[in-house]
Amino acid sequence: VTESRESTKLAFLPPEDWAPGMRVHEIDLAPSGSHLTPFKSSRFEVEAGCSSPVDQHEVREIWFIAQGEGELTYDGVPMRIRAGEVCCFEPRKPHAVVNDGASTLVVFSVWWG
Amino acid sequence: VTESRESTKLAFLPPEDWAPGMRVHEIDLAPSGSHLTPFKSSRFEVEAGCSSPVDQHEVREIWFIAQGEGELTYDGVPMRIRAGEVCCFEPRKPHAVVNDGASTLVVFSVWWG
Repeated sequence: VTESRESTKLAFLPPEDWAPGMRVHEIDLAPSGSHLTPFKSSRFEVEAGCSSPVDQHEVREIWFIAQGEGELTYDGVPMRIRAGEVCCFEPRKPHAVVNDGASTLVVFSVWWG
Repeated sequence: VTESRESTKLAFLPPEDWAPGMRVHEIDLAPSGSHLTPFKSSRFEVEAGCSSPVDQHEVREIWFIAQGEGELTYDGVPMRIRAGEVCCFEPRKPHAVVNDGASTLVVFSVWWG
């Protein structure tokens, strides 16, 4: 029973501060057979009034917006994002979000490739 | 600019009612190069007092708990799940959740294999 519980809930690696008010928690996919998981994943939070730094990389990335809202700038184009929405970033396209809402922005990220 | 906006925000396929108070919105990954996306994905909601049906399948699945809480039963073992947590289901292991909380349970699901 204990083993089943432990392997079902995935743990997080030690959090990393990417910017003031932005913290990233990478998910430890090892207990669920990381060699079979075709992506990596994290949860990150951006506090109200704070921003994520501009990020740009070769991997493709999807953001699942879990809570809150903000102003995403993707490849130079601003757009609103809010809880329930899903965004996809192509390789090498810069992306950053400003949390101009009243509550913490919470995002699950998945990246691969 | 319009094209960039459209391809960044992913759309949802028509929602499906899986049970009373449970609605599943599969994500349309096609605009972001679905042939390159090594998983499928959805967002689903379970209203307060409602449940998901028992699900069991060959693919591996991860749940990103976006909002709310509930009682997950995984392979016969009950456990609490709440916003911010991540659960992983091995192939063929039955899983279902009861939303015994006060607000809607919102989950992003990713499956592959």
